[in-house]
Amino acid sequence: MKNLKEKILIQVKDDLAQIETALSNNLDPYLDLVSKVARHILFGGGKRLRPLLMVLSARICGYQGNDDISFSTIFEYLHAATLLHDDLVDEASLRRGRPVAHSIWGNPTAVLVGDFLLARSLTLAAKTNRPNIIGIIAGITENMSQGEIEQLWLKGNLDITEAEYLEVILRKTAVLFQGACRSGAILADAPENEENALSEYGRHLGLAFQMADDLLDYIADTKSLGKAVGADLKEGKLTLPVIYSLKGAIAADREKIRRIIQNSDFSVNEFEMLVKMLYQYGGIDYTRREAVRHVEKAKEAISIFTPSPQRDLLMDIADYSLIRKN
Amino acid sequence: MKNLKEKILIQVKDDLAQIETALSNNLDPYLDLVSKVARHILFGGGKRLRPLLMVLSARICGYQGNDDISFSTIFEYLHAATLLHDDLVDEASLRRGRPVAHSIWGNPTAVLVGDFLLARSLTLAAKTNRPNIIGIIAGITENMSQGEIEQLWLKGNLDITEAEYLEVILRKTAVLFQGACRSGAILADAPENEENALSEYGRHLGLAFQMADDLLDYIADTKSLGKAVGADLKEGKLTLPVIYSLKGAIAADREKIRRIIQNSDFSVNEFEMLVKMLYQYGGIDYTRREAVRHVEKAKEAISIFTPSPQRDLLMDIADYSLIRKN
Repeated sequence: MKNLKEKILIQVKDDLAQIETALSNNLDPYLDLVSKVARHILFGGGKRLRPLLMVLSARICGYQGNDDISFSTIFEYLHAATLLHDDLVDEASLRRGRPVAHSIWGNPTAVLVGDFLLARSLTLAAKTNRPNIIGIIAGITENMSQGEIEQLWLKGNLDITEAEYLEVILRKTAVLFQGACRSGAILADAPENEENALSEYGRHLGLAFQMADDLLDYIADTKSLGKAVGADLKEGKLTLPVIYSLKGAIAADREKIRRIIQNSDFSVNEFEMLVKMLYQYGGIDYTRREAVRHVEKAKEAISIFTPSPQRDLLMDIADYSLIRKN
Repeated sequence: MKNLKEKILIQVKDDLAQIETALSNNLDPYLDLVSKVARHILFGGGKRLRPLLMVLSARICGYQGNDDISFSTIFEYLHAATLLHDDLVDEASLRRGRPVAHSIWGNPTAVLVGDFLLARSLTLAAKTNRPNIIGIIAGITENMSQGEIEQLWLKGNLDITEAEYLEVILRKTAVLFQGACRSGAILADAPENEENALSEYGRHLGLAFQMADDLLDYIADTKSLGKAVGADLKEGKLTLPVIYSLKGAIAADREKIRRIIQNSDFSVNEFEMLVKMLYQYGGIDYTRREAVRHVEKAKEAISIFTPSPQRDLLMDIADYSLIRKN
């Protein structure tokens, strides 16, 4: 497992370094406080997966220009903006093992710097001079805010269906992956079938990525996760492992699960009991199988491209989304 | 005074009605809750000044197409998005005589619906297919978030200078007016000198508008203002009437002002004493004169256009910004 991560990292090392530089340069001319808060969220150990997906998507379509790295930062700024607002909405306290921005600088600053990062991503989008790409960025933002709102209003609702869950994760996570991949294809002036293939790749990868994320909340350990396990549950956020298990649980167990969910102060013992039930009723296994299925769909989508190192890399990234630890 | 308002309203009645319809239509396909919160902030008695400025700017440059009304809503959505976030940042309780959105639906929803409205304005901007306009919208959003952040960090600081105040109101208010007017000119494919003239008109009008707003916080009555007078002061927000007066005050009065500002629970008597000092030290008068000066500059800027009913209307709107009561 570790080998796959290293195999990927060796190949994208130079791109990642350039992305880091571009992310930093694009923030330079701003107010001290804005830069400081933006840097806290931007340079806190993110994987740069979204910009990387745009760069690789452009390259697999034959792009040879110099704008890919700079434009790819759009997707990291957008991601960082939503992290700032989501941490606040979720009343989170840790992200990647560090205190969240709103706990350091207060809610108002976190709201406003989030707005600033959103605006930054749009300014960069406008610079692409491609109305298609700009429309995609705007659409991603609309979807993400709506996905977060849906998630917020579904909190604590034990009757949430798998379809509702899928709509939420499509909007809050997958459209950004999808948009990054599609924008890469557009930048490369790729034919429609390639643009659609990369769009499908991104969408399925995003769904798999979020399902893996939701699994980690039950099966990871706090240290490697960088935040407390069971955080979703504490917030009343019901994800696929729970949704699936609730469907099959006998009345007495359903009642037990309900009690744990409705008490945000649940004990470690109670949490462990819940995880056991998620295994027993198949929620863990089902979620993992669904994530694998979406990874396979993602890989299938890009199989239309002739084999190349870029294609292999995108395939490896899809596989990696299932085995990552944070 | 009332006559000027009526004179303006008679001429823009049809445009305003069309703007209302467009604002509502553009929200239709969204989640119930999103629409509900968005409608609360959008249809709470706003003057539609910003979209109107775009429409009139396009027309004075000879625009005869059908896209002006629809695109003009960009500026109202942007405005509404920032109102949602600003009310939250300022911990306001009333806007236009009604409870603020975050007090009804909670902070998280207000943050996310604000993001959604921001995204809505960008989607519409992308539809203009004009990279210039898109760049302006993105720039406005960057400036507004930075202006709000500056204002936030200057709160309670008695040493704020007039230059700092001007930078804040330029960013948080005037760039939006400026951008609306400039976008109208761009939509009309106006020559550069006309685009610049309208841009200057918008900027000066925005500065005058904000100064008049800041004055109202001291000289209006609560009922016609739709929120409590003295609200800026309660939040520790120092505006031009206070900044100017502090500069000229003798040490004992400066100390009195400082005590009132630093105690957000000041009494009606204390507030009246402060207002008296703002008159005495010329802060009220200076702010009014500065607002008048910017209105004159705004009118001067558009004097390059040949006389027309549209030009008269823009002149009247500039004058009206000084005499409005809310």
